[in-house]
Amino acid sequence: MLQRLIGICQTLSRRGKSFSLCQMLKRGLRLGLGLSPVRHYTLDLRGIYPPITTPFNPLGQLQYQQLVDNVHRWSQLPFRGLVVQGSNGEYPFLTETERVEVVNRVRQVVPADKLVVAGSGCESTEATLEMTKKMAAVGADAVMVVTPSYYRGRLNSAAFVHHYSRVADGSPVPVVLYSVPGNTGLELPLDAILTLSQHPNIIGLKDSGGDITRMALIIYKTRKQEFQVLAGSAGFLLSAYSVGAVGAVCALANVLGEQLCSLEKLCLSGKWEEALELQYRLLEPNTMVTRTLGISGLKQALEWFGYHGGVPRSPLQPLTDTERTDLRAVFTNNGWL
Amino acid sequence: MLQRLIGICQTLSRRGKSFSLCQMLKRGLRLGLGLSPVRHYTLDLRGIYPPITTPFNPLGQLQYQQLVDNVHRWSQLPFRGLVVQGSNGEYPFLTETERVEVVNRVRQVVPADKLVVAGSGCESTEATLEMTKKMAAVGADAVMVVTPSYYRGRLNSAAFVHHYSRVADGSPVPVVLYSVPGNTGLELPLDAILTLSQHPNIIGLKDSGGDITRMALIIYKTRKQEFQVLAGSAGFLLSAYSVGAVGAVCALANVLGEQLCSLEKLCLSGKWEEALELQYRLLEPNTMVTRTLGISGLKQALEWFGYHGGVPRSPLQPLTDTERTDLRAVFTNNGWL
Amino acid sequence: MLQRLIGICQTLSRRGKSFSLCQMLKRGLRLGLGLSPVRHYTLDLRGIYPPITTPFNPLGQLQYQQLVDNVHRWSQLPFRGLVVQGSNGEYPFLTETERVEVVNRVRQVVPADKLVVAGSGCESTEATLEMTKKMAAVGADAVMVVTPSYYRGRLNSAAFVHHYSRVADGSPVPVVLYSVPGNTGLELPLDAILTLSQHPNIIGLKDSGGDITRMALIIYKTRKQEFQVLAGSAGFLLSAYSVGAVGAVCALANVLGEQLCSLEKLCLSGKWEEALELQYRLLEPNTMVTRTLGISGLKQALEWFGYHGGVPRSPLQPLTDTERTDLRAVFTNNGWL
Amino acid sequence: MLQRLIGICQTLSRRGKSFSLCQMLKRGLRLGLGLSPVRHYTLDLRGIYPPITTPFNPLGQLQYQQLVDNVHRWSQLPFRGLVVQGSNGEYPFLTETERVEVVNRVRQVVPADKLVVAGSGCESTEATLEMTKKMAAVGADAVMVVTPSYYRGRLNSAAFVHHYSRVADGSPVPVVLYSVPGNTGLELPLDAILTLSQHPNIIGLKDSGGDITRMALIIYKTRKQEFQVLAGSAGFLLSAYSVGAVGAVCALANVLGEQLCSLEKLCLSGKWEEALELQYRLLEPNTMVTRTLGISGLKQALEWFGYHGGVPRSPLQPLTDTERTDLRAVFTNNGWL
Repeated sequence: MLQRLIGICQTLSRRGKSFSLCQMLKRGLRLGLGLSPVRHYTLDLRGIYPPITTPFNPLGQLQYQQLVDNVHRWSQLPFRGLVVQGSNGEYPFLTETERVEVVNRVRQVVPADKLVVAGSGCESTEATLEMTKKMAAVGADAVMVVTPSYYRGRLNSAAFVHHYSRVADGSPVPVVLYSVPGNTGLELPLDAILTLSQHPNIIGLKDSGGDITRMALIIYKTRKQEFQVLAGSAGFLLSAYSVGAVGAVCALANVLGEQLCSLEKLCLSGKWEEALELQYRLLEPNTMVTRTLGISGLKQALEWFGYHGGVPRSPLQPLTDTERTDLRAVFTNNGWL
Repeated sequence: MLQRLIGICQTLSRRGKSFSLCQMLKRGLRLGLGLSPVRHYTLDLRGIYPPITTPFNPLGQLQYQQLVDNVHRWSQLPFRGLVVQGSNGEYPFLTETERVEVVNRVRQVVPADKLVVAGSGCESTEATLEMTKKMAAVGADAVMVVTPSYYRGRLNSAAFVHHYSRVADGSPVPVVLYSVPGNTGLELPLDAILTLSQHPNIIGLKDSGGDITRMALIIYKTRKQEFQVLAGSAGFLLSAYSVGAVGAVCALANVLGEQLCSLEKLCLSGKWEEALELQYRLLEPNTMVTRTLGISGLKQALEWFGYHGGVPRSPLQPLTDTERTDLRAVFTNNGWL
Repeated sequence: MLQRLIGICQTLSRRGKSFSLCQMLKRGLRLGLGLSPVRHYTLDLRGIYPPITTPFNPLGQLQYQQLVDNVHRWSQLPFRGLVVQGSNGEYPFLTETERVEVVNRVRQVVPADKLVVAGSGCESTEATLEMTKKMAAVGADAVMVVTPSYYRGRLNSAAFVHHYSRVADGSPVPVVLYSVPGNTGLELPLDAILTLSQHPNIIGLKDSGGDITRMALIIYKTRKQEFQVLAGSAGFLLSAYSVGAVGAVCALANVLGEQLCSLEKLCLSGKWEEALELQYRLLEPNTMVTRTLGISGLKQALEWFGYHGGVPRSPLQPLTDTERTDLRAVFTNNGWL
Repeated sequence: MLQRLIGICQTLSRRGKSFSLCQMLKRGLRLGLGLSPVRHYTLDLRGIYPPITTPFNPLGQLQYQQLVDNVHRWSQLPFRGLVVQGSNGEYPFLTETERVEVVNRVRQVVPADKLVVAGSGCESTEATLEMTKKMAAVGADAVMVVTPSYYRGRLNSAAFVHHYSRVADGSPVPVVLYSVPGNTGLELPLDAILTLSQHPNIIGLKDSGGDITRMALIIYKTRKQEFQVLAGSAGFLLSAYSVGAVGAVCALANVLGEQLCSLEKLCLSGKWEEALELQYRLLEPNTMVTRTLGISGLKQALEWFGYHGGVPRSPLQPLTDTERTDLRAVFTNNGWL
């Protein structure tokens, strides 16, 4: 019966209803049934997600219709869902209102069987919790919470445990931890992750750091909690699957979504050799739209693949001609254009 | 006559009027008088500034009356002005409304002959410009703009030059660059600083990095622009004066403001030996309230010195007992408590 | 016939004869037979290698008999060979004479069908070449050359290409590149590796950095050169195999050699699930004897597994009691002791 | 009487005699006279030192006659002494024999009233001690011991304290600590320095890190030990004097020795404004021959200033044409060529 109730909750949640009732229900049931030692996923995260970009016009104005158009196309791919306002969504450049409205618009378009995972992280704990609630209210199935980073000198494990526990306690939807040292300059410490993995409303981690040993260790040490680990980049997707990750959030999925879903399928069905051939050809394009050229590169590539790309907000700058040529060459040389 | 007009403008500005008229006037006069090759400071920044803290109660609510009380006390010290919402002001934890209101309240209390330099930096260029205008509108004499940092992989000199030029073009008040690698994990590149020093509305730099060779080089290479460099910490205040800095914004000035103004005076009057004796005794307390214990330490020290300190917003945590004891020992051992 | 000649050369080389004749012969044959476009391995590196430790007594004196005893035991395991004077061999603490003599002694003990790969890297190019020749003269089958690092500010790709080309030109045995940022603080740049992979006497890379995306990219971009990539740690061994690595040099193989050879076999036979279960249990012990406790930890573990461990030379210090207890717990908890 | 005996010892030592007798004498006297609480410098380090380069011909052969020629010229400048085999002496590229012989040759040429401070650091403690003894035996007045760095993961304060204590215990001449993060990638920790400053045979520190706050703190915290701190670069020489450093070891002194001695004099006589004008003009040339172009740049500059420069040993590469032009421009633009 518990399973069925959880199932109903998940269905409701995917339809954009508020989670709070469901969550309370689930928690109460667990407690009532003495289920606390056994952990059930409140949400199954397995699969591939594009961390979708946010389209702007050259004046920097948010183009909602273009966003909706893109989402329609992404919705036709076998993604598990979309990540809205990961780093590639330029969330630090959006106003509070825009952040919520983007989630709202995406949720309205995305089919009910696909997840909307919304990036609700802010520097302060309270702001993160507020944003979490607002995003949940417009239908986010889960939130992905990036580490605060500004006061890095004092952000030790204790501070992170406090921050995420407080957010997860108050969040109407499940919470996914998000560590992205390439942007924040810091890594969510291993011991903090292990502690937080025991929180009933923290269901997983997106790790973009690319340290595969660390990722394997996290998976191994949290297997009793059935904590779900997602790779944060297409560059190490195959390797992540090889050590037990359940999915990936990859910038490259914005443009090569089908291929990344194929790679997932090959990994899950044990066709590692084929998987590797595909993984190889994704390495360089992935590096280009992440480390080398970032969102500017990704948005340019989107244009080539028929999506609305546009330019990022300033201070990010559009590609130079040389950069555009290099980017094109990499996609061409690997057989994608 | 030009000097007098500039003087009037500055007086107006310190009284909380909009700068835009003054700025246009000054620029027009300069152009009309053929003064462009000669650069006059639009604002004389020389002196010591505390980057004031923002008081919260244990629930995290902003305590405006406590802020005002503190500002009254700081106003009695021979500071050149106050920096509102530097890193120690916990600006990343404030809402947009709070950020502006804090500047507003401070400006109402601070005497007209003291500057209010407001931290208006945001991740995006447009948000920074908007915040700049709002802070100017409530009476900030200048804005101090921290480097964006989230998309660090793409934040090269060209991006920074674009960002700061755009903000300075649109700002009704002069702009001070702000490089604080201890928090952002990146340093505003030297070549970007040199380029930006030529912008008529960029009047200086607060450098908290502590690389004294770099600071000396910036001062040397911008001396034709009469660009004003402020040290970003009390730890290297004497050294900064020794290489030509015009002042300092020091966390420690929140609690030992008088002593830091004395140190300034000793440096400016060439009493280097006395200055050094004083500098020595400030080193350890400074390290404690910056690198070691951060804002939590600074707020604890404020309590001991009779100010409203309180606790920082989460995820920053109050001091542990051990940390409090260590902090106390350092202030005591150096003769300050 | 070419293959047979190469075979003879390899046999000769393993018996401690000079390679130079063989190398000339092979090159000449290739040229004569117009074989330059097709690259054949001069040495097949596939397999697992322990980077063996060097035993010292408490006075820091090298214990050759203990070394020989250990090598006898390691020789009974299905290793491809031994790496002598990798980082775990404390090569920076050995005199020039000791470095050569250790290789000599090991070569005398190791069966002819197992490789002796000797670490011959020094800071200067000429010293590296001299050491390479001496180690080849006492029977090293190949040399593994760590990146110089002291003048890191000037060690760009051009410098590395020059360094390794010069060494490989003059070396009587094949050269393996060695990048170990955990010790040197720098990484051999990707472009330098790609250039060097085309050198006929550079046959592979040991990469201890653990960036699996980079490793995959190196393998992909050098597949035409049949360049052999070895993982530099047991922590990412499975992942390395998943992206096409041909083997591994793992500190942990000093103590858990059989298990690492089993892991290799499981990976090569496509039994990825079993492999993963084994990999998981190796993660923590591996971290302990590398990052956390280093050689001191490895030598302590050797004692527990019946080898001669001893203590490292100073400034490395023996384990504290707490460290020893922690180390023991990790081996015990993972079922190895 | 003690002072006189110490004076005799120092005179002897400067003439290249073994220190061991003197040291024993001094220690015995101190103990006998109950003087341990009062610390007297065993060697007065105050002044400017060039860390001299080692000339090679294009084949990489050490050119002793060129070295001697250079030393003759440097000896005519008001240096306190020469540092032989600092980082600029390419010590990691010299054989053990060359290292000792270079010190020997220099000592034979340098006048008795100038110090020869010899870089004796090796990775292992015992090798460092052996090298120290050999350099003392050929007349080094003191040794400067760079931090080991290869096993950085385990080189904590305890390891450094053990390393330096052991070397200082066994050294016949006083020991100067040497921290150079630009080359080693690590910094000798503050707490290790404070502990080591109490050792009777450790008389100072060369700090090349350029963190002036740290330097000031070291000077302040060791003032009871009269520990002597030398700046490790011309870039922050004035600032170092401003916080109490007693001298400097500057690469730039190889070519602009007279100017650096003038800068010292200006600082010591309190002529800070003149000093600053001179310091400014040294900043860019200093950066060029250290961070930007390193030893290759320094050796090129030596040629322009009439010394024997030559090229560094490989893997360091000679300047490219562009680099040479840039270097020349910097010396010209600052009025030195």
